[in-house]
Amino acid sequence: MRAIDWVSESAPNPSWIRLLDQTRLPNDEIVLEIRTVDQLIDAISRLAVRGAPALGVAGAMGAALALQNGSAETATEEIARLREARPTAVNLAWGVDRVMRSFDQGFDAVLTEAIAVRDEDILGSQRMAEKGYNLLAELLPEKINEGLTLMTICNTGSLAAVEGGTALGVIAEVFRRGDLTNVIACETRPLFQGARLTAWELAKMGAPHQTVVDSAANFITSQGGIDAILVGADRIAANGDSANKIGTFSIALGAQYAGIPFIVVAPESTIDVETASGDLITIEDRGTDEVVTINGKRMSPAETTSLNPAFDVTPAALITGIVTDARVIRPALGQQPADAL
Amino acid sequence: MRAIDWVSESAPNPSWIRLLDQTRLPNDEIVLEIRTVDQLIDAISRLAVRGAPALGVAGAMGAALALQNGSAETATEEIARLREARPTAVNLAWGVDRVMRSFDQGFDAVLTEAIAVRDEDILGSQRMAEKGYNLLAELLPEKINEGLTLMTICNTGSLAAVEGGTALGVIAEVFRRGDLTNVIACETRPLFQGARLTAWELAKMGAPHQTVVDSAANFITSQGGIDAILVGADRIAANGDSANKIGTFSIALGAQYAGIPFIVVAPESTIDVETASGDLITIEDRGTDEVVTINGKRMSPAETTSLNPAFDVTPAALITGIVTDARVIRPALGQQPADAL
Repeated sequence: MRAIDWVSESAPNPSWIRLLDQTRLPNDEIVLEIRTVDQLIDAISRLAVRGAPALGVAGAMGAALALQNGSAETATEEIARLREARPTAVNLAWGVDRVMRSFDQGFDAVLTEAIAVRDEDILGSQRMAEKGYNLLAELLPEKINEGLTLMTICNTGSLAAVEGGTALGVIAEVFRRGDLTNVIACETRPLFQGARLTAWELAKMGAPHQTVVDSAANFITSQGGIDAILVGADRIAANGDSANKIGTFSIALGAQYAGIPFIVVAPESTIDVETASGDLITIEDRGTDEVVTINGKRMSPAETTSLNPAFDVTPAALITGIVTDARVIRPALGQQPADAL
Repeated sequence: MRAIDWVSESAPNPSWIRLLDQTRLPNDEIVLEIRTVDQLIDAISRLAVRGAPALGVAGAMGAALALQNGSAETATEEIARLREARPTAVNLAWGVDRVMRSFDQGFDAVLTEAIAVRDEDILGSQRMAEKGYNLLAELLPEKINEGLTLMTICNTGSLAAVEGGTALGVIAEVFRRGDLTNVIACETRPLFQGARLTAWELAKMGAPHQTVVDSAANFITSQGGIDAILVGADRIAANGDSANKIGTFSIALGAQYAGIPFIVVAPESTIDVETASGDLITIEDRGTDEVVTINGKRMSPAETTSLNPAFDVTPAALITGIVTDARVIRPALGQQPADAL
């Protein structure tokens, strides 16, 4: 089942957005019927739908939903709120902006564009998987046939997109081609997207995998156990600095120390040429509760607060390659995303 | 209340070891009456008592308990099992070996030695606090009077010793002298000793603090928010390589990237001159359940297993200073613990 899709109903019934509630995985596979923009904003805020590509599709489909349900005026207000539902991920705003070019032509035109965003996302995942595999083969020519052990963080698979995904899409491609020895999935505190969602996807595809606490990643890498690290991105600056799930910068340091490739996989829509460098990217802080309360139990005294940056920025110098649906950029060699295609 | 102490009963009642059950903090303050070596081994295995200095005292007092309760023969067997209850921490074996020199003189002599181990631990904590503070003042002469923001991992305070502690003991000294701006406590997956125990100690002393997920530590450090990182150690090799809680190596990489001091605080008994370097240190793997099950709920699919190294090794080259109860060693400058005092 796709992580996000548009469900067309016959008139007079309104159409809706179908989401797999990712907060309930891996234990429950619950489908959400999203019928209003407010429901969509709520689902995005509590991470029922997340992942840069999926958020792009959500932005596009949400705009269509707003126009289906109300006037151009109410839709404009709703779409503006939707666009800002998460500040760090550029794809959400990108998806909204993409379909808003058709806004004046009305609902049918916006929906057609939203469906195109979805279909391009599926095609983009396929292209990233192939380009990512080829980059691994180029960087690790002797190891790829022996079988690779790959590390990743957060969830960047089919749950983070419509189908396929980004970094985990590349890993799935390595598995399909018979070249995967093991996946080390960082559990990804505070919300355990690695332990819950990446492990669920890998288990579903029958791929070998193990989870680790995030703090163990660099030690395992330093012991020679990892061939390459692949991660997604939520926003890539013009110079190649990449914002992604908190913890990504840390494992990039581990990759540098061990001398292994560190690869970012993301669609072109994640590249934000308006943002010159990573220090200009707004980092969302999601507050204390998400850190100190786990499965309903508070782990710390009542006086304790937390810093909770949801993302970090990995400097371009630590990134061996950025794989998009259109190209491979080599930031550590001085190439920049802002360079012409 | 001391994390561990010997409770002397009048004859004919047997004496016992009092432990604060650290698995129940911060929500419940439960005292354990340890009356047999098997109870003590169980408490050590499930981390009801942990922390390198406290484990040294546990080893010493456990040997006394064995001799009180049985013959020299049964005691010998029990003490051998106690000595191996956790493979990475050298202090447990050190505490056992220290009192075993008095074994042939019987229970009273062993108990006297165990009480001496306890009292020396208290004095050692005081010395480490002072030497650690002085090292910070030397390394950060301009910042210390403005107030320091210090990062730590795991729990290395009074709960990890008898009183005082190691790295958190130094931080408490900085607080007592009015030079503490904030403590960033890494939550310390998988068992949350930072979120639970360090936050509990800091809250009790009224010190400013915030927890972070472990994976956020290096990003926060890289943003210039941290003046120094202080950690404990479970075993320090002759060359200065230091084994400590998993995640320590990772934040040492962050300290190096940011160019801030990374300081190990541990009693002399943690130095194991028989182990030449860190790659010879046995790292305990504590299995899948501890990683995937939190507060009774499994986070990953049934097929998923975990790598769970409980410790890692930080290379000496990443360590600015090792502070013991007797001296300050500067590994990054080429000094080694194996050098003469």
